[in-house]
Amino acid sequence: MTKREIRFQSDVPDVAGNGLLDRRALLGRGILFAGAAATGAGTAASAAAEPLKNDPWSLTMGTVSPPRQEPSRFEKHVVRTLSNPNNELRNSHGRTPHHLINGTVTPSALHFSICHSGLPDIDPEKHQLVVHGLVKQPKTFSLADLDRYPKVTRMAFVECAGNSAPMFSNEPVQATCQALHGLSSNSEWTGVLVSTLFEEVGLDPKATWFLAEGADSLALHRSVPVKKGLDDAMIAIYQNGERLMPGNGYPMRLLLPGYQGNMNIKHVRRLKLLDQPSMSFYEAKTYSQIMPGEKLVKFNFVMQVKSFITHPSFGHSLKGPGYYEISGIAYSGNGRIAKVMVSADGGKSWAQAALQGAIHPQAFTRFTVPWRWDGQPVTLLSRAWDEGGNAQPMRPEFVAARGQTERPVTNPLGFPNQHYNSITAWSVDNKGEIKHVYA
Amino acid sequence: MTKREIRFQSDVPDVAGNGLLDRRALLGRGILFAGAAATGAGTAASAAAEPLKNDPWSLTMGTVSPPRQEPSRFEKHVVRTLSNPNNELRNSHGRTPHHLINGTVTPSALHFSICHSGLPDIDPEKHQLVVHGLVKQPKTFSLADLDRYPKVTRMAFVECAGNSAPMFSNEPVQATCQALHGLSSNSEWTGVLVSTLFEEVGLDPKATWFLAEGADSLALHRSVPVKKGLDDAMIAIYQNGERLMPGNGYPMRLLLPGYQGNMNIKHVRRLKLLDQPSMSFYEAKTYSQIMPGEKLVKFNFVMQVKSFITHPSFGHSLKGPGYYEISGIAYSGNGRIAKVMVSADGGKSWAQAALQGAIHPQAFTRFTVPWRWDGQPVTLLSRAWDEGGNAQPMRPEFVAARGQTERPVTNPLGFPNQHYNSITAWSVDNKGEIKHVYA
Repeated sequence: MTKREIRFQSDVPDVAGNGLLDRRALLGRGILFAGAAATGAGTAASAAAEPLKNDPWSLTMGTVSPPRQEPSRFEKHVVRTLSNPNNELRNSHGRTPHHLINGTVTPSALHFSICHSGLPDIDPEKHQLVVHGLVKQPKTFSLADLDRYPKVTRMAFVECAGNSAPMFSNEPVQATCQALHGLSSNSEWTGVLVSTLFEEVGLDPKATWFLAEGADSLALHRSVPVKKGLDDAMIAIYQNGERLMPGNGYPMRLLLPGYQGNMNIKHVRRLKLLDQPSMSFYEAKTYSQIMPGEKLVKFNFVMQVKSFITHPSFGHSLKGPGYYEISGIAYSGNGRIAKVMVSADGGKSWAQAALQGAIHPQAFTRFTVPWRWDGQPVTLLSRAWDEGGNAQPMRPEFVAARGQTERPVTNPLGFPNQHYNSITAWSVDNKGEIKHVYA
Repeated sequence: MTKREIRFQSDVPDVAGNGLLDRRALLGRGILFAGAAATGAGTAASAAAEPLKNDPWSLTMGTVSPPRQEPSRFEKHVVRTLSNPNNELRNSHGRTPHHLINGTVTPSALHFSICHSGLPDIDPEKHQLVVHGLVKQPKTFSLADLDRYPKVTRMAFVECAGNSAPMFSNEPVQATCQALHGLSSNSEWTGVLVSTLFEEVGLDPKATWFLAEGADSLALHRSVPVKKGLDDAMIAIYQNGERLMPGNGYPMRLLLPGYQGNMNIKHVRRLKLLDQPSMSFYEAKTYSQIMPGEKLVKFNFVMQVKSFITHPSFGHSLKGPGYYEISGIAYSGNGRIAKVMVSADGGKSWAQAALQGAIHPQAFTRFTVPWRWDGQPVTLLSRAWDEGGNAQPMRPEFVAARGQTERPVTNPLGFPNQHYNSITAWSVDNKGEIKHVYA
């Protein structure tokens, strides 16, 4: 990669320390780059007036585009990282490479997955969803049945409650966004509202919870309040237009917008209406958080407002001073993102970020800030607010409330390692190298 | 697939002929399905109260979820159809299977592509975009450069001007949505606005057009008004979050929201500012439409408002009377979709469809209508309006203006085979079989 400078007019004012520019400069005409002379080694501007050289790929007929397109061979590094590639008898994580992608949609191929007993090979014509328990008329639904019912299409993130667990370490772990925050992804889901199925079976007035259970060999199950089922829960049968990926619940999953990932039961085969929670393993133990003072918090479902900068971030390096875009992801289980602020001086001053495109509730929002780097050391961080007025907590405040752990974390059970939603900070040194720091 | 009936209360009123229901029934509580008894062969409701049987996939540990997820082996039929799978020396079409997918995002793997000289194998570190011609300072931009510039993220469809060409036949071609309308797809694109690059080079006031040229061996090129470049044109470098698919322009393409696909130059390597259009082959010949009376229409760029029903459609069949969802896609090159109307009686009466999620300009909008089929023959069709007040034309009106051709269409050049945006109609017979008809 050629080191080159992208210069710009010096009269664009900073709105916060260390070169953060007004987000509206994005929309400006003639204020940001006018007068620049972006010539670089080997790419002299004068050459542009000459006939273009033909690169080798321009000299011969190309290959055929296949029935199912695949990324270029130059993109082989853009994959999920696996925690258990040999499928040993334990769970397996596949993490989204946030530092290598952009926009808001996570390609389904790169959507994170956690499998506690591997991927079941489900025949969609034989799979059935049963809705029973405290209902007037229990019923079963095939995939073909669900395809006939009224469906809704919406964007939604799914995030593991244990996403960002390395951030509980008392020393910043030197790792990419993928390693730190890769257990969160965002898709367009299409499916049948759970409220529609509840109408079909008729709820007994005593029904206040429902057990959702998957068809994996673990029969992973969680309890969900009926209120959430009536509000916005969905049996999702399409993910980004096509059928669900196997790791994301093929052929159908429970989608609980904004609730911790483990509750969004994959391969769902049962909704059983109950008059109390079932106190399953995953709600009674794994996802009951131990807080400072050994207090146990149960039923902590909503993933709170969060943001992190994906570009630039650990694993990238800056190619000399000049203009860069700071870009990242924000989301909240409480609703829409209202505002994201970015700092380049470790939190002393802040600039408001631009939010890209339509802002969907319980979904990724891409934020961007134009930035002029002068080549000196800086510390970048982002902070988000949601429409409910919730602010992403700063780290000292978060650690005071939730604690932190000694490195290395040898036993994740028992450690306060869930629902991290505080700040992520990246330092950039004068060589453009990026480190993970606490600020 | 088991034939089964999904019944419902008989007091839900029709809003149009042959069983079209109010779109707000989707949002209702207790009005649509309450009192239903959806039992089917082999899925007796009573069984639901018993312990669930364990399907074979629930009895053993599953497989590992790979670094890049792939669809289930049961979804192998959900692929693009290729017009030139052996890569003969002619163009090659890959069509999106609209009748097999849902929602609004087209998975990048299934986004349509047309390659006129195959897929170039481009090294993204060597590819460069030159902006030159009538500019103050010509410049080159690498992919890494563009990644530093301010970027925007937006949804947009791309549609080939020749999409739906079989609809010009004077007899309805019996074919799926994929065969009829598969040269149109929708993605979330992220990239740098062309206006930003124009600021960088500084436009000569005489510049009114620009030539965009690709790095494929054909060096496919088209002329675009500078006004479109300043308005909303983008150099797209991400598609649905990841780098562009090779067939969709890797590593960068020109995106002209709402303009005919051929102009959205893939693998773009040059924007040359001109004081007139270049009158290239594709604008002077292929995409100059011959109209009735041998009049030639040049520079017909905008893809007009259009819709079609994807579910149910040719290739599907209805499994007995009862409730179904009618669902389809609408879009317009002029902006947002304002309204979609659906008829089940060949156009005699119409019901307004629900529009799903956020409605983006120049992007697919998913429409849905609840429908109660009584088992008698019906004819389904949809009609869309955009925010500019443009109505999708009915077929008689469209044919009067644009003509139609005798089957088979042996020579596409010279036939009025572009910019079809009229109605698509599906007839359903009393066995539930679906045919393509003109209505």
